[in-house]
Amino acid sequence: MNQNTPRALRLHIGIFGRRNVGKSSLLNAITRQQVAIVSALAGTTTDPVEKPMELLPVGPVLFIDTAGIDDSGVVGDLRVAKTREVFERTDLGIIVSDGEWGAYEESIAAALAERQTPVIVVLNKSDLGAPPEATLARLAELRLPSVRTAAAKRDDPLGDGILDLRHAIVDHAPEDFISNPDIVADLVGPGQMAVLVVPIDKEAPKGRLILPQVQSIRDLLDNDAWCMVVKERELRTALDQLKRPPKLVVTDSQAFLKVAADTPPEVPLTSFSILFSRFKGDLVSQTLGALAIDTLKAGDRVLIAEACAHHPIAEDIGRVKIPRWLTQYVGGKLEFTIVAGRDYPEDLSPFKLIVHCGGCTFNRKEMLNRILKAKAAGVPITNYGLTIAFSLGIFERALQPFPAALAAYVEARREQGRAGRVVGEATGEAKGKELTGKEMA
Amino acid sequence: MNQNTPRALRLHIGIFGRRNVGKSSLLNAITRQQVAIVSALAGTTTDPVEKPMELLPVGPVLFIDTAGIDDSGVVGDLRVAKTREVFERTDLGIIVSDGEWGAYEESIAAALAERQTPVIVVLNKSDLGAPPEATLARLAELRLPSVRTAAAKRDDPLGDGILDLRHAIVDHAPEDFISNPDIVADLVGPGQMAVLVVPIDKEAPKGRLILPQVQSIRDLLDNDAWCMVVKERELRTALDQLKRPPKLVVTDSQAFLKVAADTPPEVPLTSFSILFSRFKGDLVSQTLGALAIDTLKAGDRVLIAEACAHHPIAEDIGRVKIPRWLTQYVGGKLEFTIVAGRDYPEDLSPFKLIVHCGGCTFNRKEMLNRILKAKAAGVPITNYGLTIAFSLGIFERALQPFPAALAAYVEARREQGRAGRVVGEATGEAKGKELTGKEMA
Repeated sequence: MNQNTPRALRLHIGIFGRRNVGKSSLLNAITRQQVAIVSALAGTTTDPVEKPMELLPVGPVLFIDTAGIDDSGVVGDLRVAKTREVFERTDLGIIVSDGEWGAYEESIAAALAERQTPVIVVLNKSDLGAPPEATLARLAELRLPSVRTAAAKRDDPLGDGILDLRHAIVDHAPEDFISNPDIVADLVGPGQMAVLVVPIDKEAPKGRLILPQVQSIRDLLDNDAWCMVVKERELRTALDQLKRPPKLVVTDSQAFLKVAADTPPEVPLTSFSILFSRFKGDLVSQTLGALAIDTLKAGDRVLIAEACAHHPIAEDIGRVKIPRWLTQYVGGKLEFTIVAGRDYPEDLSPFKLIVHCGGCTFNRKEMLNRILKAKAAGVPITNYGLTIAFSLGIFERALQPFPAALAAYVEARREQGRAGRVVGEATGEAKGKELTGKEMA
Repeated sequence: MNQNTPRALRLHIGIFGRRNVGKSSLLNAITRQQVAIVSALAGTTTDPVEKPMELLPVGPVLFIDTAGIDDSGVVGDLRVAKTREVFERTDLGIIVSDGEWGAYEESIAAALAERQTPVIVVLNKSDLGAPPEATLARLAELRLPSVRTAAAKRDDPLGDGILDLRHAIVDHAPEDFISNPDIVADLVGPGQMAVLVVPIDKEAPKGRLILPQVQSIRDLLDNDAWCMVVKERELRTALDQLKRPPKLVVTDSQAFLKVAADTPPEVPLTSFSILFSRFKGDLVSQTLGALAIDTLKAGDRVLIAEACAHHPIAEDIGRVKIPRWLTQYVGGKLEFTIVAGRDYPEDLSPFKLIVHCGGCTFNRKEMLNRILKAKAAGVPITNYGLTIAFSLGIFERALQPFPAALAAYVEARREQGRAGRVVGEATGEAKGKELTGKEMA
């Protein structure tokens, strides 16, 4: 999904709270940590303010700031109707409190509970002291999860609790919003065709296709689209037999250059890894993570993480190919740590970059939590296919079908330029630049 | 594979034995139980006689009858060379003995052992008495499997031991020959395209494709071919976008009628079930088995057998759809027994028909042994997709790509005609005819 995501498909997060508990500064704190374009819709005094944004790593959300629905005594008819309307369309409620928990908070919590809407309590202004014991006791009684924030603290983006709030959103949002429903079908409509390029190499399990390929085929069929499945060597011949070009070509990352050469420039091209970054992880975060490849220097530590603990083979992509390509790109020796399955380091701080597999055997929540852990440690995280596309200088073309990720990438490149640093195009020429992981995330 | 199978791909079975042990009558006994077209190549007196045939349920074999290589004293140079040549190209050796086991048999067994060629000993003329204890002891010592036959007994095709020999051939032939290498790639060559029609119904596992679909895609890719994967509803639109018609259309059996209507008559059409009957079972046997559907009468018992013990769903094909279709076709109530997994009846004799699943989770040996057990019990056996194609009156079209199966079907229909019975076309009109299962097998 991108910034054009229909409003209905966005996760609607209602923000409730009395005056002066810091609702606006909370929203501002969240907003200033996002790279995606945010446009606030001005409301009337009684209308809630809506902020659509790409919340990393959750995806497209709509924050509904109920500034007009507060505890200011008498509530007019209009205001009651507005309030009800916000409750009705809230998928996840955030109750902001400065520590106090009274009748107002109880009524909001009850209204949300009645609609079976999940709730997160934000105990803001935590820098001014711990919340009252009575509040904590009541939250425990109500079994409401809570997060402590200090949204007004502008100087410490990792210490203001916003990252914890993002974790909580991932953990408590309805599963439907966390599990991205589309792999590829939103890019290839009913009655349209995609071409899936499936190289058969030593890694391809005998007699099978790998899960992302099967899931992509199924996703297209489920949405009344169809596909051609072809090896990279036969792609050109296969395309020649079509009366109309396909709507999209999806390739295994390892055949990217050959497929790019054989796909007409007007046909959108991407990879299974990029589709799966979006489907199982967060494409915007992992796109920005890939930019850190340009900042790697000889001697840096890189974490390669795989979701499944398969038996490694001779030309294994994670164990052999990616380390080799990164080493060549950086032009110096890197220190690689390779982990698989549940075996993921608690302390990510020694790493300059995390390169994760596509995570096809993970659910999205699991992958988002790994991305958030990386953000908490200030370490950029990307995935195999994005790393390959970046190293091959094919990044921009592969991101074309994803406006939000492309915009974030272009914006990050522009900011690098503004910061006075020499930034190359993603052509494999830009090496050893001084960007920190933090700037990337 | 069909009768045009290249000689090199046939299982070469060398038949060795002294004069008068019954090599020729053994070969005749095997031959007269086969429906496929057999053409003996006449040899010179010193040349071995070769008989290519479709050996049910193994597939294409070439029997090499070494009539010229016997124990007749002095062996000329030419004969020695011929003998060596036969040993060299034998994939499975059969040593025929009338009970005696001496220097001659030892030398043949040693020559085959030296080449690591598997051996079956046929103790023929078993109707004339048990083999000598010394022979049995020596075979046990050499760990050579043996089968007792009475090949000259023409009156009892189930009691002459030939079925045991077929079992032994399935069990001892090199795995390469038993495991059919091709699912579909021999029908769609390099640089050619197949269309795979994959309906998405309640049985389709969420987010996946079923194994035969995935394996067919992979088989095409492995052989430098490619495919279009489409639902039945979009098939016509998809075909319209091709400059040339596909080489083959393969459909899920359940969409057969719709797909047949949308596939131009000149384009070969078959089903995944038929491909898998060939790949995992024996298409000729299972084709003939389907003919027994016409002989079913109200009250008959039918065994439905599934390889995997999946959790049955509402519209399960084996538990609901096939029983419903067969009942409609027969026009009376049938008694169904449904088994799954390893739970396969020892006694098959109560059944008039066995309808097996495609067996995609079995290896071929396992399925062939079930087919042989059915033959031993005189019960026709077919599979889900063949049953559907037969019931829908689409049998001949679906068998077009498989000359051996089609020829066997046409021949069986002709014999039914000669037997003076009224035989309808396989259009769903021919019901309740008096054909016995034995005539089918």
